Order: sequence, then structure tokens, then C-alpha cells
Amino acid sequence: MIELLHPEPLTADAFLPFGEVIETEGRPFHYINQQQVQRYDDLAEVDVLAQDGRAGISLAHAQPYCLPLRVQVLERHPLSSQAFIPLAGARFVVVVAPVGERVEGHALRAFVTNGQQGVNYRRGVWHHVLLAVDQPATFVMIDRLGAGPNCDRIELAPAAQRLLAWREV
Amino acid sequence: MIELLHPEPLTADAFLPFGEVIETEGRPFHYINQQQVQRYDDLAEVDVLAQDGRAGISLAHAQPYCLPLRVQVLERHPLSSQAFIPLAGARFVVVVAPVGERVEGHALRAFVTNGQQGVNYRRGVWHHVLLAVDQPATFVMIDRLGAGPNCDRIELAPAAQRLLAWREV
Repeated sequence: MIELLHPEPLTADAFLPFGEVIETEGRPFHYINQQQVQRYDDLAEVDVLAQDGRAGISLAHAQPYCLPLRVQVLERHPLSSQAFIPLAGARFVVVVAPVGERVEGHALRAFVTNGQQGVNYRRGVWHHVLLAVDQPATFVMIDRLGAGPNCDRIELAPAAQRLLAWREV
Repeated sequence: MIELLHPEPLTADAFLPFGEVIETEGRPFHYINQQQVQRYDDLAEVDVLAQDGRAGISLAHAQPYCLPLRVQVLERHPLSSQAFIPLAGARFVVVVAPVGERVEGHALRAFVTNGQQGVNYRRGVWHHVLLAVDQPATFVMIDRLGAGPNCDRIELAPAAQRLLAWREV
């Protein structure tokens, strides 16, 4: 019998072990451009190892997944952080596990965004591939571009696998 | 009598001297995540001089400007590129002039985005501050964070100033 994993609301504090939440809510800002613009600085660390790579800006059109979904495989990027920021207010689900060589089932965490949030996975953090959930969604991505292997995949042992399911009906 | 400057539709080719247009329309992509995601790679060069600085992700809430507007002051960032990508499909206007120590009025160009486009100003490109036009809009910004002077401003000579105005009524 597979254990369930329920996504909890994404908050900066809860996500801190895995990276940053990219949002304006509750964050400090300063004015620029003669008070015309509120700038919320430095919401996520772009951490790209320079060896044969560089930070780049990409866009991604994601088709939605249906939940429940069996979490079987995670990936990590040993050479860079990876940020996703949704356009058009799309919420999405993130599944993460701490940095390390193994992934234990009890260490898996799932979060659902509120539509106004992006995330930045810290370098080396295990995560499920992008999980748009309601409808197709477009994301800004900021991560490493360049040659060389920057994606490790891990297949979870059967006991570590979880069924990702909504609490809500 | 001040000369008029009309924004033209933003296209990648027209904007090439100033930087990149961040959009998916007409761009190549490759599939990732078992064909679930179309990834449009490398849409803009993040060019941040490492001296005392680093690339960062910020958000900006911009109040709209009303056109016509007198273009009197431009700015440039000598240490970094600067990207703006609107959330929620907001169009905006960009006014740019080529890299150089002076700005000639005839070299000013203005563009209006289609709502699905962002821009990346190449390092050193002169540009007007962010011009949201229809309503308040939020933008993802990718530029340099760090100490040191990274914003030069230039006041245009009266003959180089232009009145930015819509063609449309």
C-alpha cells in the first residue's frame, strides 16, 4: 500500500531547506523610477557554476498533470540552481527532497503554490519535474545553459515512493 | 516644436541592436519531461560582470505611465544586462538608444510589446525606465545585484528629446 503525500501551501519558511519562494507578498521593497516602481530585490539566488556554463533565461510551456500521481523519479542539478516563475498566475505543485545521495520517502515534501509564487531550487536539491496542474502554463526559467551533465535522476525505492494527492476534493 | 517618437511593434530583428526579445512565438523549442514541457532555451543573455556583483531575480510592481510622455532622461547599466518579463500578459513600451557616450535624437527607437514579450537590454544600452502603459503590471527582473555604481543617467539635449506618443488613438 503506497503512502500518500499531500501538498501543503507553499511558504518561504517551509521551503527554506530547498530554496526560495519568488513572490512579493510580505517582502520588503524599495522604490525606483521616481516612486513609479516597487522593486522587490534578490528574491532568489542564481547559483550557476561557471565551468562551461552560464545563467540563462528560458521559457517553458508545460502541459498539466493530473493528480493523484505516483512520485517515482526525482532529479537534481549539480551545477546550478533552477528557478520557475509562472506567467498568468498559474499555480503548480513542487515535490522536493533534501540534498544528499539518497532520497528517503519520509523526507519528501510537496507544496502547492498560490498562483503568485515562483520557486528557485537550490543547487543539488532533489525535485520532481515541473507539475503544472490546472491547465497548460508558461514559466520563466532561470538556470544553467551549457555543455556537460547537469541533471541527475534518481529512481526512488518502492518504499520511498509516494502517491501525490490533493487534500482538496 | 518637439519631434514625435512613435512606438513600433516589438520584433526580435528590430530589437537586435539593443538586446533580445524574450518570447516563444516563432522560436525553436525542445521537449523535456517526457514531452510534457516545451522548453525555449536561451532567450536572453544574462551578462553580469562578476566584480562585486551577481545575477539576481527580482520582481517589480510598476504603475502605468500615460502617453504622450516627453523622453528626457535615459539610463544604462555598465555592469550588466537587464531583463524584464511581464507577468499576466501586460504590454509595455521600451525606448532605447545604442551603446555610446552620447544619445542622438535620431537614434532613439521606441517599441511596444504584444503582452507576450519580455525584453533584455544588453549591457550598456541606453533605455528609458520601465514604461507600463495600460495598468499596473508586475515584471520579473533579471539583472545585477551588488555594490558599486551600475546606473548611469543621461539628460538628453533639448534637440534630442522626443515626445513619445501612440500611433493608435
